[in-house]
Amino acid sequence: MSATHQLRCVDCGVQTSADSISSDFRCPECNGLYEVLYPWSAGVHDSTTDAGGSQLRLPNPGGIRHLWQERRTSTLPIDQSGVWRFRELLPIVRNVEKVVTLCEGNTPLYDLPRCAELAGVDWLFAKHQGMNPTGSFKDTGMTAALSVAVERGFQWVACASTGNTSAAMAAYAARAGLRSIVFIPEGKIAWGKLSQSMDYGALTVQLKTDFDGCVRLLLELVRRFPIYLLNSVNPYRLEGQKTPAMEILEQMEWQVPEHLVVPGGNLANSSALGKGFLELKQLGMIPRVPKISVIQAQGANPLYRWFGDANREMNPVTAETRATAIRIGNPASWKKAARVIEQTGGWCEEATEQEIALAKAQIGAEGIGCEPASAVTLAGLKKLVVQGQVNRGERVVLLLTGHTLKDPQYTIDYHRGELLEPEELAGATADDLARHTELRKAPIVLEANQDVVLRTLEQQMNAQVPAGAGSPA
Amino acid sequence: MSATHQLRCVDCGVQTSADSISSDFRCPECNGLYEVLYPWSAGVHDSTTDAGGSQLRLPNPGGIRHLWQERRTSTLPIDQSGVWRFRELLPIVRNVEKVVTLCEGNTPLYDLPRCAELAGVDWLFAKHQGMNPTGSFKDTGMTAALSVAVERGFQWVACASTGNTSAAMAAYAARAGLRSIVFIPEGKIAWGKLSQSMDYGALTVQLKTDFDGCVRLLLELVRRFPIYLLNSVNPYRLEGQKTPAMEILEQMEWQVPEHLVVPGGNLANSSALGKGFLELKQLGMIPRVPKISVIQAQGANPLYRWFGDANREMNPVTAETRATAIRIGNPASWKKAARVIEQTGGWCEEATEQEIALAKAQIGAEGIGCEPASAVTLAGLKKLVVQGQVNRGERVVLLLTGHTLKDPQYTIDYHRGELLEPEELAGATADDLARHTELRKAPIVLEANQDVVLRTLEQQMNAQVPAGAGSPA
Repeated sequence: MSATHQLRCVDCGVQTSADSISSDFRCPECNGLYEVLYPWSAGVHDSTTDAGGSQLRLPNPGGIRHLWQERRTSTLPIDQSGVWRFRELLPIVRNVEKVVTLCEGNTPLYDLPRCAELAGVDWLFAKHQGMNPTGSFKDTGMTAALSVAVERGFQWVACASTGNTSAAMAAYAARAGLRSIVFIPEGKIAWGKLSQSMDYGALTVQLKTDFDGCVRLLLELVRRFPIYLLNSVNPYRLEGQKTPAMEILEQMEWQVPEHLVVPGGNLANSSALGKGFLELKQLGMIPRVPKISVIQAQGANPLYRWFGDANREMNPVTAETRATAIRIGNPASWKKAARVIEQTGGWCEEATEQEIALAKAQIGAEGIGCEPASAVTLAGLKKLVVQGQVNRGERVVLLLTGHTLKDPQYTIDYHRGELLEPEELAGATADDLARHTELRKAPIVLEANQDVVLRTLEQQMNAQVPAGAGSPA
Repeated sequence: MSATHQLRCVDCGVQTSADSISSDFRCPECNGLYEVLYPWSAGVHDSTTDAGGSQLRLPNPGGIRHLWQERRTSTLPIDQSGVWRFRELLPIVRNVEKVVTLCEGNTPLYDLPRCAELAGVDWLFAKHQGMNPTGSFKDTGMTAALSVAVERGFQWVACASTGNTSAAMAAYAARAGLRSIVFIPEGKIAWGKLSQSMDYGALTVQLKTDFDGCVRLLLELVRRFPIYLLNSVNPYRLEGQKTPAMEILEQMEWQVPEHLVVPGGNLANSSALGKGFLELKQLGMIPRVPKISVIQAQGANPLYRWFGDANREMNPVTAETRATAIRIGNPASWKKAARVIEQTGGWCEEATEQEIALAKAQIGAEGIGCEPASAVTLAGLKKLVVQGQVNRGERVVLLLTGHTLKDPQYTIDYHRGELLEPEELAGATADDLARHTELRKAPIVLEANQDVVLRTLEQQMNAQVPAGAGSPA
């Protein structure tokens, strides 16, 4: 397989070969981001063109679907990967046998019958990207970008991140025998989230500056040394992150859901998923794409504001939310995401801290753990239904981005009643307050006395009739 | 499919029907544990018989292998489960369509080329059960036992645990719409580990007693109320936990590895894996079984002591190890595990805290994160090689039981040099001390000054040549 792709600037449209771009992945003309362009991309990623305009049909879509499915029975690492299984649609490396993989992807699509009822839809599933090897969706992007780094002979990679990105980068770098560098602002260190990059052997550098300062020094570093940049400006990460689109379709037997709801932080993920669906449509593998909606935390909502701004100006915000994975005030990929929302006919919504906490507990009560940022999807869906943008009979897929173990403290604080401030709860409806009370499961302390224990638990058992008892999912 | 199985007491051999056993899963004659017995079990699980004695051959082993493989391409939840995909070998429920599943199993088998070199073997892979939905191998057992609970009409389930068991139980109970109760000793609460059971809606009860006291009150509870006991004495959990045997064989294209190395805590896992391999041999699907070796932490090593004791007496110990998942001094399933080791020709070894920490960092440096208890396998393997029990040319599979995110604090403490006490390092060889120094990656703090950052990193890059650079795995 040959690497047959070009890179195109999202802003000015200039195309260039993958070998000739600068180390910071920015267009020298206009500083715009690049996207990967294939022969079948024509017309797909051009915001001035109707995505349904010109279609490049595959001679045999059924054949390729069958090929992808059959690879699940193979024991080859590239076939067991839920990214490289779809390698026909990401020809970004010349030698696909040498890709760096941790058997990412192949994540479950869970039905959420009780959340569906709460949100007011009949059909609701969650694609859980937190079930990836390092616990977040970043793995699907890192297998792609790290494989490119290896093919180009890099021995060092780097990113600025305090969370999921650094964990994924460090794991894939270690897998390939490469060394990795993580830049983080000093004092803002979240030890739990960094434990993974240390485990995988990354070199962590705390800089006495803020996040933007870290990014500036990182760019200087990659300009001066042969270090491959793995921040989300790297367009190859998005190629890996588009593959859940194929998996969702496989899991739905190639029926297209009406809606896909995605958390919005740096906005690369919604961009990537949109690219995936749009390319599949362009190739004639699906007749239409789902409406892709992006949900931001109210405290980190620059894209939501942009959609509401008459002048369409992007104003970065000072981000503040407990959903740390989407605590981003100046998202790098906002133009790509805005284009995907507009091209697919989706919406952008926001969710408060209270709404996020409630949604996370409701997803948890279905036996599905996710990190807080993932739960904005359910919180946002509820609003889209109330506003009539999602109808009861339409099929909705929520994209969960991280595992619940990524942020155990949030869960503990919530259930002990120590997460939300009174003023955050003040905005909640009476129904929602009652739901919080019902869902919160703070530990109770009892004497080790048989009578006390049995009497107390008997009361608990009589008081709480299981929600779905007798009708297991 | 009908539930065609009996239960047999491991101690006195009495067989009974599954419907007639008591709520505490103990033999009324001798207080022994039960195991699940199928038509093909005859001769397999009898310690007085050579396991290779009488074989019940399947008419068409190739056909069943093909069936199991093809199910991977199905979209049915029971086929996507890496437990129920093998349902022919665990007919424990009558209606398999109604099982409670979170798409467990289907975990990766990773090659560990650098750890192989360190241990002195040519072929070393890790079966990573920490990649299950709740982050530990317990999920494969819980899908089995919870499905039995649902079929028998229970609405409540319970266990005593502070860690992985409670997380798995709570998730599967929530999935089924059942309610769950976790008993833990007060004051010994590990909030991080309990965050998951709270997330999945379990009722957590802290009792003012020790762990044994919790178990006593739990048994009283299940005797008095219709609550299903999900501690490891429940024999159905082992039926789910035997399925990685099938997966390992599939991933090795039905070649049998010479060795399987498993962490030893409560010892149900090694018992279950042994049962899986022995049943496959009994059915003629493999010609022999791997030698199954169990590695315990030195501070929680009752089985290791038992093997070394001339009188073969089991003496519980006061367990003390940072590998919390195997910090068990009085393991419930020790007889089953001892039988498996003896029947397969494996060994029991122990590993010190220093050896565990080094092994965990070495596994991490391959890009594979695991919890400390999992790392005893590599630490133990090194000893088995030195002692000549494992030869360089033999194929070895390590069983990793939990995800690195289960215990981030351990990782942080290790890399900051705050984990091991000087006296724990005193026993290490000079080589091992050098390896600790090389592997430890404590964060460095730098001024946000371009010259400082670039100069420092240039030094780091010159000093540290990547281990496997140029030859990615």
